[in-house]
Amino acid sequence: MKTVPVGVSGRHIHLTQEHIEVLFGAGYQLTEFKALSQPGQFAANETVEVIGPKGSFKTVRILGPARPASQLEVSRTDAFSLGLKPPVRESGNIEDTPGVKLVGPNGEVELEQGVIVAARHIHFHTSDAEKWNIQDKAKLRVRVGGERGVVFENVIARVSPNFALDMHIDTDEANAAGVKNGDTAEIVE
Amino acid sequence: MKTVPVGVSGRHIHLTQEHIEVLFGAGYQLTEFKALSQPGQFAANETVEVIGPKGSFKTVRILGPARPASQLEVSRTDAFSLGLKPPVRESGNIEDTPGVKLVGPNGEVELEQGVIVAARHIHFHTSDAEKWNIQDKAKLRVRVGGERGVVFENVIARVSPNFALDMHIDTDEANAAGVKNGDTAEIVE
Repeated sequence: MKTVPVGVSGRHIHLTQEHIEVLFGAGYQLTEFKALSQPGQFAANETVEVIGPKGSFKTVRILGPARPASQLEVSRTDAFSLGLKPPVRESGNIEDTPGVKLVGPNGEVELEQGVIVAARHIHFHTSDAEKWNIQDKAKLRVRVGGERGVVFENVIARVSPNFALDMHIDTDEANAAGVKNGDTAEIVE
Repeated sequence: MKTVPVGVSGRHIHLTQEHIEVLFGAGYQLTEFKALSQPGQFAANETVEVIGPKGSFKTVRILGPARPASQLEVSRTDAFSLGLKPPVRESGNIEDTPGVKLVGPNGEVELEQGVIVAARHIHFHTSDAEKWNIQDKAKLRVRVGGERGVVFENVIARVSPNFALDMHIDTDEANAAGVKNGDTAEIVE
């Protein structure tokens, strides 16, 4: 049985060092609140306000470290609240996505693009992928059982020696399937 | 192929005539805004404010006609916003569910119970159910395709000569599967 732990991603943002400095001040460095499941990744103590054409979120958690491009990841429910129509995308693929306004304690950033609904995916360490014969970029079917049991299709496999085994879904997906952080799912094909 | 139209239910409330009169005034009758897919059911022009321990919704649509028991149906996402932990239930099964406060233009109602997350279900006219050999109360697996393709398990069949064929899911489920009102799903077993 190919069992994977489930991690539920709430809305969050990745920022470039340049945007971090506009929002928080010259030379500012994110500080770690909590380590995440993927090695080296962390939830920062810092949050930012995100303002869309229809609504806003006061405190959106920043995930570190800084990245080459800023990217806001929201659920479809969040997107309706903001008044945006972001596509479902893999992290890092932000061409032709909507922008949004960010407000920090030191300044504001008008993101030109970078708002996505994250495509559900599983991080595999290379050794897990080899053991289960799963290729990078493969699209998997993954089942979560229980009262609101669901089979998720098109779950993208991402394989790297830098990854730890974890399935990432957003809050809409978690709520629809009745799962929470630390529950498990089964790859069915 | 057993194809059914999908109807996405946003948060809404059913009220007793007694509660309608407390909220809107003695002798008040709901007025129809729009007919729903099930014969005789309608979205009312009237809305009510719903106040939970953590948050509130200013304008929750009332669905008519009046019912024998008042019942608020929310998504899991909504439930977190309100600060409630309602169970997943079939409509009408409200024993041991949380209550909530309702505020209308004429008065307030402290519901003792009645908040649920609606269990996904399909309404079948008796003739559809016979044609497809589906029993009332059966639990079905139903697939929605596309980029966020999902197979929903435990979809409850509800069969009646008073029903019109329609699958009802909530906004979390619709967002997780990337479907909207009027899309179709397929019963796979």
